[in-house]
Amino acid sequence: MTVITGARTLDVRARTSITLAGSDAVHQDPDYSGAYVFLSTDGAHEGVGMTFTIGRGNDLCCAAIEQLAPLVVGRDLDELTADPAAFWRRLTNDGQLRWLGPEKGVIHLATAALVNAVWDLWAKVEQKPLWQLVCELTPEQFVACVDFRYLTDALDRDEALDLLRALAPTREARIAELARDGYPAYLTSAGWLGYDEAKVRDLCRAALANGWRCFKTKVGLELADDIRRCEIMREEIGDLPLMADANQVWDVQEAIERMRHLASFDLRWIEEPTSPDDVLGHAAIRRAIAPVGVATGEHAANRVLFKQLLQAEAIDYCQIDACRLGGVNEVLAVLLLAAKFGVPVCPHAGGLGLCEYVQHLSVIDYVCVSGSLDDRTTEFADHLHEHFVHPAIVRDGRYVLPTAPGYSADLQPDSYAALAYPGGTAWKT
Amino acid sequence: MTVITGARTLDVRARTSITLAGSDAVHQDPDYSGAYVFLSTDGAHEGVGMTFTIGRGNDLCCAAIEQLAPLVVGRDLDELTADPAAFWRRLTNDGQLRWLGPEKGVIHLATAALVNAVWDLWAKVEQKPLWQLVCELTPEQFVACVDFRYLTDALDRDEALDLLRALAPTREARIAELARDGYPAYLTSAGWLGYDEAKVRDLCRAALANGWRCFKTKVGLELADDIRRCEIMREEIGDLPLMADANQVWDVQEAIERMRHLASFDLRWIEEPTSPDDVLGHAAIRRAIAPVGVATGEHAANRVLFKQLLQAEAIDYCQIDACRLGGVNEVLAVLLLAAKFGVPVCPHAGGLGLCEYVQHLSVIDYVCVSGSLDDRTTEFADHLHEHFVHPAIVRDGRYVLPTAPGYSADLQPDSYAALAYPGGTAWKT
Repeated sequence: MTVITGARTLDVRARTSITLAGSDAVHQDPDYSGAYVFLSTDGAHEGVGMTFTIGRGNDLCCAAIEQLAPLVVGRDLDELTADPAAFWRRLTNDGQLRWLGPEKGVIHLATAALVNAVWDLWAKVEQKPLWQLVCELTPEQFVACVDFRYLTDALDRDEALDLLRALAPTREARIAELARDGYPAYLTSAGWLGYDEAKVRDLCRAALANGWRCFKTKVGLELADDIRRCEIMREEIGDLPLMADANQVWDVQEAIERMRHLASFDLRWIEEPTSPDDVLGHAAIRRAIAPVGVATGEHAANRVLFKQLLQAEAIDYCQIDACRLGGVNEVLAVLLLAAKFGVPVCPHAGGLGLCEYVQHLSVIDYVCVSGSLDDRTTEFADHLHEHFVHPAIVRDGRYVLPTAPGYSADLQPDSYAALAYPGGTAWKT
Repeated sequence: MTVITGARTLDVRARTSITLAGSDAVHQDPDYSGAYVFLSTDGAHEGVGMTFTIGRGNDLCCAAIEQLAPLVVGRDLDELTADPAAFWRRLTNDGQLRWLGPEKGVIHLATAALVNAVWDLWAKVEQKPLWQLVCELTPEQFVACVDFRYLTDALDRDEALDLLRALAPTREARIAELARDGYPAYLTSAGWLGYDEAKVRDLCRAALANGWRCFKTKVGLELADDIRRCEIMREEIGDLPLMADANQVWDVQEAIERMRHLASFDLRWIEEPTSPDDVLGHAAIRRAIAPVGVATGEHAANRVLFKQLLQAEAIDYCQIDACRLGGVNEVLAVLLLAAKFGVPVCPHAGGLGLCEYVQHLSVIDYVCVSGSLDDRTTEFADHLHEHFVHPAIVRDGRYVLPTAPGYSADLQPDSYAALAYPGGTAWKT
């Protein structure tokens, strides 16, 4: 027995707006932030979870976590893990708080932090990294983590079970492969929109020297600027895979026209070409711009959005977010959906803690759900990792399999002290 | 000139969970609440706005309003009303707060409160009820209120202008008609899910005696219970129009099967049969259950959702919500979209203040945008109106045209004192 005895939140913010790391067409001055929650227990371990935001409003997520916390505090971890889907359903269906979403916005971001904290606690109690905990669940235990509500017209429990059972006998071989080779990654850090040409070139050269072989650039400014950014990237990286990210800046027709002008750059995907809520718009764009792919998901509020993106054949790449979705349980649902529809999952990362999170999720996807690395690549951005006790590590352009117990969100004690908002030392200068 | 000099919020909650007024299949103990904002000015008037929630988390909306308030405070009303779409775009596109939505959940509910407060102030300064202020805008001024971002693949400014211009010459006749006859309404209050059979029968009889001719019941429990509720309603109201509301409780196939069992009750619509995010699911349900209509919208987060519901032919009735959408500006966008697609708008109301709000919106829709009352009916629930300075009035089943300046959200001073949470007198017993 491990009883959760309390929940404490902390508003953590890094002053990334000073350097413009993370800047794009709609988020021009992000301060990468985490709304952290710490679950104390009557045992040796603490569950640490977070949701990611980009500054202002991070305190709203902390406040929302505190409103949801009574649904977790006082509960026995064994009870939560015996029926994880029921636990998740309770968190997302409080009779009053549900109105604030449902399953979207601040309340769902807060759900993610709490759910991730419970999974972190579970993994620490089991003394395993999160990916290993999940990869050692039986197919029956795995589907017991998923709330299939609103999904059954696309995927039900039995189909999910079939899918997991087919891959279960070969899990060990894929784990061994990842332990040896790592999981393929791509780099976003060279192309932030606030960076000038010289800086982009320098960063590309350094990345190539470090073994990176897949890149993404930001677009979504004036057409001439977008073309120039793609030219610079192509000049630096040659024929290596290149993606572009518009961060929701265009209308549907505008996206189609813009992509015609960028066709010569052989982009693997255009990411977030329009409103993240616009399933039909993404489908129209996809039909118009093939063979360039369409990718989205970092702002897709919940599994129902992903279900529709897949049903409508609106995306070529499924970009789950570890904190936008309601934590591990809902991510597992989307991994299953994507596998059912044959669409590769390429998680959104960067931010604060997102790389640390998605490295686990990509392993779970490959080992348990998709069984394929074809067309898969997981985002990486190279700042803020120094704050983590067990930072994500990338070697030769591939994520190294994490080994520390838990879900990797813990920050260094000094970092909590520095980044706490507004009282931290980083905010006093 | 009227400069907005400050913004103050108040967490207002009514203890409706005691009586189960408002209860349904997923909201079993709502405390109808409003996150209020008061915009002080250097002039004679105060702008009052609110967003509606059902209890816990109402304070999160107040806190979110406070985060958005700096985008309004210090501004001149004339400047905001000279380019209303630009004002709305600024509120919904703060570079950091946007991450919390975008345009959904707590931050968008808070946007609604602030936007509604600015419109209330504008109407009070003009000494007109909100509907009149809007109905006296030229078509050019009307479209200047709408942010067409993400809409242009379905509706652009020029199409909207054409639509408004066609109806502009006959606005006065429709206003005169509404002043004489009122706007058609339907009653939800008889069918709350927490009410027993005797209470439902009593309420139906009282409503019929009061002139009501259109009713809605809650469904979404066990099938036998749903059938029984429809039987009771039909026994009481005979052949009058009857709608049913499932409040998101079913999966897609489940909704289709359930509606087969309710087919004999000649329901005009089934409301929220499944997840409010599931555009494709609503479309599948609609295809399967015709001639029963599909209605949704009270949880549709923004105009992009409505655009898709219309594009996918997923709804027969478009249920705008004055507070779920980002206030008056975004409501106007959805009225235009619905008119373009020929779908009647039947606003969601009830709650706290929603009837007071939507009475204005339905008038605007008829006078300026749709020009039709066919198949239109606006929801009414009969509790909590006593708290309002200018409550919505329904006579013979029709909303009476409001006459007081503003947007009708002001509460009585005693009601603010009683319902303030947690300090109000209503919460101390």
